[in-house]
Amino acid sequence: MDQQEKALAAHKAWNGKFEIRSRAPLGTREDLATAYTPGVAAPCLEIRDNPDKVYDYCRKGNYVAVVTDGSAILGLGNIGPVAGMPVMEGKAILFKEFADVDAVPICLGTQDPQEIVRTVELMAPGFGGINLEDISAPRCFEVERALTEKLKIPVFHDDQHGTAVVVLAAVRNVTRLTGKKLKDLKIVVNGAGAAGNAITHLLAAQGVGEIVVVDQQGALHKDLPDMDPYQQELAALTNPRNLTGSLGDVIDGADVFIGVSAPGVLTKDMVARMAPQAAVFAMANPVPEIDPEEAREAGAYIVGTGRSDHPNQINNVLAFPGIFRGALDVRAEKINDAMLLAAADAIASMVSDEQLSPDYVMPDPVAERIAPAVAAAVARAARESGVAGN
Amino acid sequence: MDQQEKALAAHKAWNGKFEIRSRAPLGTREDLATAYTPGVAAPCLEIRDNPDKVYDYCRKGNYVAVVTDGSAILGLGNIGPVAGMPVMEGKAILFKEFADVDAVPICLGTQDPQEIVRTVELMAPGFGGINLEDISAPRCFEVERALTEKLKIPVFHDDQHGTAVVVLAAVRNVTRLTGKKLKDLKIVVNGAGAAGNAITHLLAAQGVGEIVVVDQQGALHKDLPDMDPYQQELAALTNPRNLTGSLGDVIDGADVFIGVSAPGVLTKDMVARMAPQAAVFAMANPVPEIDPEEAREAGAYIVGTGRSDHPNQINNVLAFPGIFRGALDVRAEKINDAMLLAAADAIASMVSDEQLSPDYVMPDPVAERIAPAVAAAVARAARESGVAGN
Repeated sequence: MDQQEKALAAHKAWNGKFEIRSRAPLGTREDLATAYTPGVAAPCLEIRDNPDKVYDYCRKGNYVAVVTDGSAILGLGNIGPVAGMPVMEGKAILFKEFADVDAVPICLGTQDPQEIVRTVELMAPGFGGINLEDISAPRCFEVERALTEKLKIPVFHDDQHGTAVVVLAAVRNVTRLTGKKLKDLKIVVNGAGAAGNAITHLLAAQGVGEIVVVDQQGALHKDLPDMDPYQQELAALTNPRNLTGSLGDVIDGADVFIGVSAPGVLTKDMVARMAPQAAVFAMANPVPEIDPEEAREAGAYIVGTGRSDHPNQINNVLAFPGIFRGALDVRAEKINDAMLLAAADAIASMVSDEQLSPDYVMPDPVAERIAPAVAAAVARAARESGVAGN
Repeated sequence: MDQQEKALAAHKAWNGKFEIRSRAPLGTREDLATAYTPGVAAPCLEIRDNPDKVYDYCRKGNYVAVVTDGSAILGLGNIGPVAGMPVMEGKAILFKEFADVDAVPICLGTQDPQEIVRTVELMAPGFGGINLEDISAPRCFEVERALTEKLKIPVFHDDQHGTAVVVLAAVRNVTRLTGKKLKDLKIVVNGAGAAGNAITHLLAAQGVGEIVVVDQQGALHKDLPDMDPYQQELAALTNPRNLTGSLGDVIDGADVFIGVSAPGVLTKDMVARMAPQAAVFAMANPVPEIDPEEAREAGAYIVGTGRSDHPNQINNVLAFPGIFRGALDVRAEKINDAMLLAAADAIASMVSDEQLSPDYVMPDPVAERIAPAVAAAVARAARESGVAGN
């Protein structure tokens, strides 16, 4: 039985990957009278008089909606909200497993950004956070910005910021391993979708020396015509030497390649033209931008992918559970760059100096200590940056 | 510590009455690769090609949203969606405890019926059913009717139909105990809100001889001016003798009083004027339409309330878990009158001939066998009435 057949059989046996569990006993009439009528009226009235007490008497502060419109499910494209549900359920149980966050899947029957925003806004009052998932670019930018403005709870598009945090952690450990400095790094980001956009912003916020973003029209630079507003923003932020042309034209001397694009677009020849001790993170899923073996043969010093069957897996599960845990713990009203940078730092530091090697720049995602470390760092950053609510 | 203090302390200790649990193991990298990427792509693609398979591979068929706008929480009035959350959480865990249904609270930030309908419609694709909760009349009628039309999953306003089912079960057992026949019964329903409306419709569907509905303007009859469309509907369905006036004017000779109104509105004098072997179900909560002791002193043969500390509790938990269990088990596209009548029958029959007495017309709500019996009856009725989807 291959992996797909195994996954199908397992999903059928589970018949859904999550379920509800009661935290209150319900075996007797008295139990019912405490947890339900008439006892339940007491917390209702307390919350009516002091809405903040919903965090004491209810699950709100630990309750996250994993929301998709099904427009960009994994690398499978626009397969719709119902076909995306297995991913949302998976996310929900990872939240619980790694960070004790109670997340539930919400699959929306619209792909109109304004309707998504309005729907999430109206269903938000009982939730402590919103995790947007697998919503395609550029709609995801509009949706996230609008919801972040409207809601006073964390709104987080994991495909953007979760990926960005994990990539930044990888880049941190590249500098630890090679002795190169962030401000001297030349990084090529291939793909300006949800992930590429957020990665670029976070790397820039962290002070990476030179970033060049390559999208379908080639390298983004200030004079490139026909860019959308998000590409214009990226162009203004990157490419100080105003490089033009294709990936092959701008890869020379790059220290790090970050692929969030399509299978096979990075050739051995391109890798050979990168800087010494180059790092290649080829995250197209399931087939990377270059086969890891070929990348190594071509001279790459560090190679990572999105896959669990190769070293250095760039896996969002390293980030999102701890990020939400930390944000919820301090009732952060949003998740800002300071929190994301702190999360990346924490993830990178989970690889000890002894462990650090070209095949071990990323920690093992199933290690239980990661999410708590990320959560602590994120909570601290939230407090220090003034977005904590308690 | 009184009951309110006890309930508050318990709610604080629980810090939310529900949580999520994983049904899939997640301890190893291989577990992650099966439940999440890359394995999760397989069920996504299966569902893309055959949307019905979401019921096999996901939780949809067991996943219910408990939706409120906070406009009529218990008897507390319009205290808002967040203050209503303790009730929604309570409902969620009762669903799980009694019928293994995975329900989650959704507290909506709007009280506009059209916005409620649109929001629920857009968040519905991942859910197998919608339980509307504590939405005030007459808005609840509009919301439920619109959603029932738009969605192909059960939409159920428990305050209406759950209450109606349990009341009908009580009335059934009144007839068993007294030997009176449904078609000869005279019933006064006091209150034409969500519950009173649905109770009246269900009693009428079951063939009760005479129903008179009393609302704030007095007894509803065809010639009463200034009725809203829902009251007009009730007037057309009831009051064959065209009785007019107040509760005190129409109570003479009634076999059953059903109160879904306000504390203390039924006097001992009125009870004394009811028919022999009269039944009084005074369900205003927490203070009934008449004190049960006084009702008995005035001659009532059977007395029930909404409270757990008196005999004959009219408790919705007897109905909604089993109704949803049965509807979900056969993927019913709606919950129709045949299913509600079957549920009432099943509940009534859980009181054996030996148990049946004036102080025992309703089964004990914590008895575990009730929901399965209700579910089986509801599933059968769904199949026979042609609304089952499998």
